[in-house]
Amino acid sequence: MELRAVGTVESPLTDLASAPKQGDEGAPEAWLVFDERVADALDGIIAGSDLLLLTWLDRADRDVLRVHPRGNPMNPEQGVFSTRSPDRPNPIGLHRVTVVSIDGLRLRVRDLEALHGTPIIDVKPLLKGIEER
Amino acid sequence: MELRAVGTVESPLTDLASAPKQGDEGAPEAWLVFDERVADALDGIIAGSDLLLLTWLDRADRDVLRVHPRGNPMNPEQGVFSTRSPDRPNPIGLHRVTVVSIDGLRLRVRDLEALHGTPIIDVKPLLKGIEER
Repeated sequence: MELRAVGTVESPLTDLASAPKQGDEGAPEAWLVFDERVADALDGIIAGSDLLLLTWLDRADRDVLRVHPRGNPMNPEQGVFSTRSPDRPNPIGLHRVTVVSIDGLRLRVRDLEALHGTPIIDVKPLLKGIEER
Repeated sequence: MELRAVGTVESPLTDLASAPKQGDEGAPEAWLVFDERVADALDGIIAGSDLLLLTWLDRADRDVLRVHPRGNPMNPEQGVFSTRSPDRPNPIGLHRVTVVSIDGLRLRVRDLEALHGTPIIDVKPLLKGIEER
């Protein structure tokens, strides 16, 4: 099961300590820069689209199984599968973002807390209600 | 970027043709069977938990970039990043499931459309509103 990056995040966020824990907690706008070879996969995404972005959190510790949620020692330890900790066996980031504008292979998005240089592995639309599918 | 399975899906669903396209479209109950080595990561998950399950859709075609949504030739072709097609460069399945019961390393869940034998790669809680985090 080998992931291949399909693009990269360009963001003013460069270190974990200053990054918000979630995108809706004050994350700046960022660019999603896609590889030319997946250009066809972007067809249908428009400004205003709400997307789920999947990334590879390449600075995470894959050996961590329990954490204090939100890095706060006052919170009792929990298994990582019931937290959004980036440290986990397969450090896949799941981010809900909104497309602000599009420039070819570059999507400008808001509400992304991923760090500069984070590999992009997938993009999915939000799932609509059954009646609208 | 090498994924390591942390468990496997046990489901009555064994072939793509008969599986629902989404979990809330009539999927049967299934078991998530986790590896002993990630037991600690499960701590905090209880019956009734709503989870996001990430799987590796091992029967997908990774070379597909455009599809007719929902496999219906009447739907105009779109890039896979604006569809939930399993065929995509990194075939990661994202499933919203509810835990029905727990038996050690086995979680019984409902609303899972993944096929029997699908590798599990991650589990995350649904993100709560900002005030509740």
